[in-house]
Amino acid sequence: MRLSPWPVSPRAIKTFILLCVFASLRLTSAAQTWIWYPGDYEIWLANQMQNRRTERGTFFPVFWKVDSHYPLMDFHKIVELNQPETVRIYAEGKYNIKLDGKPFEGTPAMITVPAGKHKLNVKVFNQATPPAIYVEGKTIKSDSTWLVTFEDKEWIDESGKTSDVSTTKWLQAGQWNFNTPAQRPSLFKLPTQPVQAVTSQKNGNNLLVDFGKETFGFVKLKGVQGKGRLTVYFGESKEEALDPEHAETLDRIDIDQKTSKDTVLQLSKAFRYINIVPGGSVKVKGASMLYEYSDLPDKGGFKCSDEEINKIYEVAKYTLHLSTREFFIDGIKRDRWIWSGDAYQSYLMNYYLMNDNATVTRTMYALRGKDPVTSHINTIMDYTFYWFLGIYDYYLYSGDKSFIVQNYDRMKSLMDYVLGRRNKDGLLEGLPGDWIFIDWATGLSKKGEVSFEQLLFARSLETMALCSGLVNEKDAAAKYQSLAADIKKKLFDYYWNEQKQALVHSRINGKPTDNVTRYANMFAVFFDYFNGQQKAAVKNSVLLNKNVPKITTPYMRFYELEALCALGDQGIVLKEMKDYWGGMLRLGATSFWEEYDPSKKGAEHYAMYGRKYGKSLCHAWGASPIYLLGKYYLGIKPTAPGYVQYTVAPVLGGLQWMEGAVPTPAGNINMYCSTSEIRISAPVGTGKLVITSKTQPECKEGTIVSKGNNVYELTIEKNKEYKVLYKAI
Amino acid sequence: MRLSPWPVSPRAIKTFILLCVFASLRLTSAAQTWIWYPGDYEIWLANQMQNRRTERGTFFPVFWKVDSHYPLMDFHKIVELNQPETVRIYAEGKYNIKLDGKPFEGTPAMITVPAGKHKLNVKVFNQATPPAIYVEGKTIKSDSTWLVTFEDKEWIDESGKTSDVSTTKWLQAGQWNFNTPAQRPSLFKLPTQPVQAVTSQKNGNNLLVDFGKETFGFVKLKGVQGKGRLTVYFGESKEEALDPEHAETLDRIDIDQKTSKDTVLQLSKAFRYINIVPGGSVKVKGASMLYEYSDLPDKGGFKCSDEEINKIYEVAKYTLHLSTREFFIDGIKRDRWIWSGDAYQSYLMNYYLMNDNATVTRTMYALRGKDPVTSHINTIMDYTFYWFLGIYDYYLYSGDKSFIVQNYDRMKSLMDYVLGRRNKDGLLEGLPGDWIFIDWATGLSKKGEVSFEQLLFARSLETMALCSGLVNEKDAAAKYQSLAADIKKKLFDYYWNEQKQALVHSRINGKPTDNVTRYANMFAVFFDYFNGQQKAAVKNSVLLNKNVPKITTPYMRFYELEALCALGDQGIVLKEMKDYWGGMLRLGATSFWEEYDPSKKGAEHYAMYGRKYGKSLCHAWGASPIYLLGKYYLGIKPTAPGYVQYTVAPVLGGLQWMEGAVPTPAGNINMYCSTSEIRISAPVGTGKLVITSKTQPECKEGTIVSKGNNVYELTIEKNKEYKVLYKAI
Repeated sequence: MRLSPWPVSPRAIKTFILLCVFASLRLTSAAQTWIWYPGDYEIWLANQMQNRRTERGTFFPVFWKVDSHYPLMDFHKIVELNQPETVRIYAEGKYNIKLDGKPFEGTPAMITVPAGKHKLNVKVFNQATPPAIYVEGKTIKSDSTWLVTFEDKEWIDESGKTSDVSTTKWLQAGQWNFNTPAQRPSLFKLPTQPVQAVTSQKNGNNLLVDFGKETFGFVKLKGVQGKGRLTVYFGESKEEALDPEHAETLDRIDIDQKTSKDTVLQLSKAFRYINIVPGGSVKVKGASMLYEYSDLPDKGGFKCSDEEINKIYEVAKYTLHLSTREFFIDGIKRDRWIWSGDAYQSYLMNYYLMNDNATVTRTMYALRGKDPVTSHINTIMDYTFYWFLGIYDYYLYSGDKSFIVQNYDRMKSLMDYVLGRRNKDGLLEGLPGDWIFIDWATGLSKKGEVSFEQLLFARSLETMALCSGLVNEKDAAAKYQSLAADIKKKLFDYYWNEQKQALVHSRINGKPTDNVTRYANMFAVFFDYFNGQQKAAVKNSVLLNKNVPKITTPYMRFYELEALCALGDQGIVLKEMKDYWGGMLRLGATSFWEEYDPSKKGAEHYAMYGRKYGKSLCHAWGASPIYLLGKYYLGIKPTAPGYVQYTVAPVLGGLQWMEGAVPTPAGNINMYCSTSEIRISAPVGTGKLVITSKTQPECKEGTIVSKGNNVYELTIEKNKEYKVLYKAI
Repeated sequence: MRLSPWPVSPRAIKTFILLCVFASLRLTSAAQTWIWYPGDYEIWLANQMQNRRTERGTFFPVFWKVDSHYPLMDFHKIVELNQPETVRIYAEGKYNIKLDGKPFEGTPAMITVPAGKHKLNVKVFNQATPPAIYVEGKTIKSDSTWLVTFEDKEWIDESGKTSDVSTTKWLQAGQWNFNTPAQRPSLFKLPTQPVQAVTSQKNGNNLLVDFGKETFGFVKLKGVQGKGRLTVYFGESKEEALDPEHAETLDRIDIDQKTSKDTVLQLSKAFRYINIVPGGSVKVKGASMLYEYSDLPDKGGFKCSDEEINKIYEVAKYTLHLSTREFFIDGIKRDRWIWSGDAYQSYLMNYYLMNDNATVTRTMYALRGKDPVTSHINTIMDYTFYWFLGIYDYYLYSGDKSFIVQNYDRMKSLMDYVLGRRNKDGLLEGLPGDWIFIDWATGLSKKGEVSFEQLLFARSLETMALCSGLVNEKDAAAKYQSLAADIKKKLFDYYWNEQKQALVHSRINGKPTDNVTRYANMFAVFFDYFNGQQKAAVKNSVLLNKNVPKITTPYMRFYELEALCALGDQGIVLKEMKDYWGGMLRLGATSFWEEYDPSKKGAEHYAMYGRKYGKSLCHAWGASPIYLLGKYYLGIKPTAPGYVQYTVAPVLGGLQWMEGAVPTPAGNINMYCSTSEIRISAPVGTGKLVITSKTQPECKEGTIVSKGNNVYELTIEKNKEYKVLYKAI
């Protein structure tokens, strides 16, 4: 989303779309795989995952509408064969198979398709899990080129003539990586691996086990024997595990076994410590665990001359990995839910680390759910907007246009919902049932028309305009563009306070307040909504102004630091990172937290929501250094979808050297940068290396062009290695 | 729906609503029972049932969108207790329980609710079957007074404060008759009872078994032994069972057993005959069956001096019972699906026979499915309209206003869908993907704007106007009323042909055709859209005009004969019944057919859809004599919801005598009527007995008032018996 400048003029959109077309020429993968209706498996899997949350042993489900897959699905493909082919069919559900509209008797596991051009249909009913098929022939294979619909409208009249199916809407089949018949999608589980405890401490019959760092998985109790109820208290901190009254999560199991046996707890959970409290005659010898994880290798990486920053980067990586499961979730101890605002940050970090498209699209499908839209995503207005922003980012980083095509109807109906909730001035304020979240911050006003929400609304409309262009809905594109321009104009007309040189927080009863908060101001910097003068002003009047209420969540620090980076203040940000994230590390954090207030002491840090251990100590939004270091220090970002074009503008920000890799769809862009030398190579597109130097830099592999003001540019061609010698300012 | 005159003027609506209020004062049943989100269990059960259709052993699902229950549901109830109460909770799904917002640990099967006023919540997740609960205390009981929602929006802010839930929409819980903890809704099955075959005929290894009449259930093969594949061919006719190439349904099972054993086939099916064809070394000794049925006793009844009519009535009853299963289905052999137009007729017949509300509402929930509306009901435009008409009838006959309240949002969004498909003249024509059904009739034009569809559209809008009034949506009521008036006006402006004295069939390219069909004309008679002069004209110009294409389905004969009855031509209709339904009986029918053309011969009667045995020989729409005899011969019908007011206008139509009972919510209205005597008693409301007599009738139990023109009226009070002596004209 952070294209700078954001191409919003009609001409810019046109250029942009042109670039997109090139980007989407890459063939989509056609591996033989289990297929389903796009979004349906994702929604179903999210239901499974999100309904595993418990709080003190009590099932704790979400409070918004939960959708289901379509239980009845038609899959089809038109094939052309030179010779007859034997095809095996596997299905999750009751099914039939038709060849050129004629059904085979029964539910054959194998059919023969004659030579020539034929249409193959498989229709599947499954109420409990998403209808899915796997088709295996020599040339006929189930993949995303199959078309799917939930209403084929294939009726016949009294003479047997078939119906008009011209309006039946087919989408391309959804898939993931279930590439063998045995990998039935409904059986999917994350992998696990055994991990031993670091220390174990007896306390009477009780046993306190420390796994050395924040982790997630299934506790395995060793040598359980006797009769009685056993309780396991989980703790992200030692204090929590040892506090039976207030530990956020626990498991109780009834034991009745004469001989000693190992027992694996059914539900995987987050913890560093566990406190095992056996009741009755129960005895337990010890505990280990099965670490449960999403097996996504790191593609990107970062290393630099500052060891504290390196440590912060490593812990951020671990935090992101723990929170990246079937989906990008918020935190691992408590919610374990998919929250759009949290996930949005995970997407961005992901593009600089694992760069896994499937987790991004899966998360966005799950968040969007199905029509009708009955509330904002997660009930939160801002979270609806982050969903839109996330789609555009995804397209920019991945170049995967098909997701936008498949998703466009859902984008439109969600935006219709938003548009239906505008007030008489065309702005959005919280209506009954809307949650205006913004951030966890005491006393933050949510009343009236909050500037931050209008800003996200404008950006979402711009996203709709761009995506409408991509699917050739020209009228829609023009409509959204004009709506976006209107909101943007109002943002400055209504909220810009000349005296304060800032956007104010809100309007109440049609009147702007004089309350300045950071939110809208920092987003307007990196959305490039401010002009140069406003940016310079806001830096001092808001970002560096200690009188403006400070931010205490890593969630909004993400954007605060991004704004400073976008203003070229990597030096300041480096110091902030070392203070803030370094501060958590100095308190013994092994993963980054939901909230961090340096003024608190000891176990106070664990409290939130009025509960002693309410805070999550491993929260995805704590991992933002991954993104900041990749995008604003290595300085690598796409400027056309899928890195067909990109820029590299390294900024050391006080470091002596740094090196790293940023993943693209075609592989990594690798870079080393010190105060005197840059080495770079890229497997994709055409890049611009932007160098700020006192003197003309040298590079024998390419031509460096001066852009004035000590700025130089080198064009980076695909698959070439460059070495630039320069003198940093 | 057949209120006459239909109260469509604003004043009439007001009066009508007033009557409704009285009608709905009856307490809704509060038996302790399993509860769920209204419509969700019904939709789920329909999915189970409709996906049991097979054609020649092949799974044959529907071709429209199939919906699901909400997998996550919150149930709550505010209780007030004088003393603490122990409550048992049973749930289908994973659940939690909260008392005044505070969760109990784990998933307790029993809790104690303290004395005082408390809020009890149970939240259930179940992906495979609808979330449902059964709560059992001394005074706390799950029933339809519990409220349910699929999005409780109960978030908390960082301080633990709970959210604004003011827009959360709660409905009253849905229920049926699962009144014990063990009767889990997801386990529901129709009851069965063993039935023996009538004859059995060996033919080599094969065995042709005749059960004597059309039936439905599970075939039980006796003494099965040997190894090989066994096929059972089902036949509604002997010809079908004996035609292995063309029998519509069959079952194949692989047998491998050394000792002789009985085997019950897994899928219940329709048949009179079965032909058992064992392969390999398989031997079968014989067959019986488990008759599967919906256990609905007959409340209404009819008997008269004409034995053929009595026989027709009995076979109609059997036909309706066979087609009344979990839902009102079309026919038992082939589709076994819920079709709105077919079900609409079953509702009406039901009101004169079993009078079971649950099957009506269950069927309407299943047909409607969920938002978003993506096509007409069953993809058929007319079927959307029958759904609206059915709701109003249901209210009229049952007085159950709560169904309209619970359903109103679904009515509105379906009507929105319809309104969104009007053309520039505000009329409806078939858009791509719309099925204009009307009737099975060769060569029937579906082009342009068909008058019949506009007429049903007008009537549906009137229904919306009335129901909007019932739920106090006054603006909506006015809007629908004005839309209805507009369509009605256009119906006469565009389609009434003075020369032909009839509504013509359609407009094509804005021009009325001169094609006259019966459909719009007969409906306009009993909808009372025609004035007296038009009615009289249409009787000869259309109904009795042999040049207008005749109707060959019992489906449209239903309405054709109703129109004649509404015109007072019970004499003609009696003859038609004897000809048409009597004609099927003379051909050996044991249930009434999907279509009957007297000009066909022998096995030709079994063909349809271009298939030798494509026709269903037991089709609900064949049972209309039940409705005609009850409503137009006994002449009993409600004139206010739930029979708070009703009329009885008996017409012998050539019979010497008739007697019968018509069910009302409070019990049966019983009547005997001959050419000289009427005896009547009613357990409900106030009725008007309308007598046509040469001379002043006598009744010592009440006062008979002359209305002129040989018409006399007697007011019938609740729970009194009347005997009227009169002389028929």
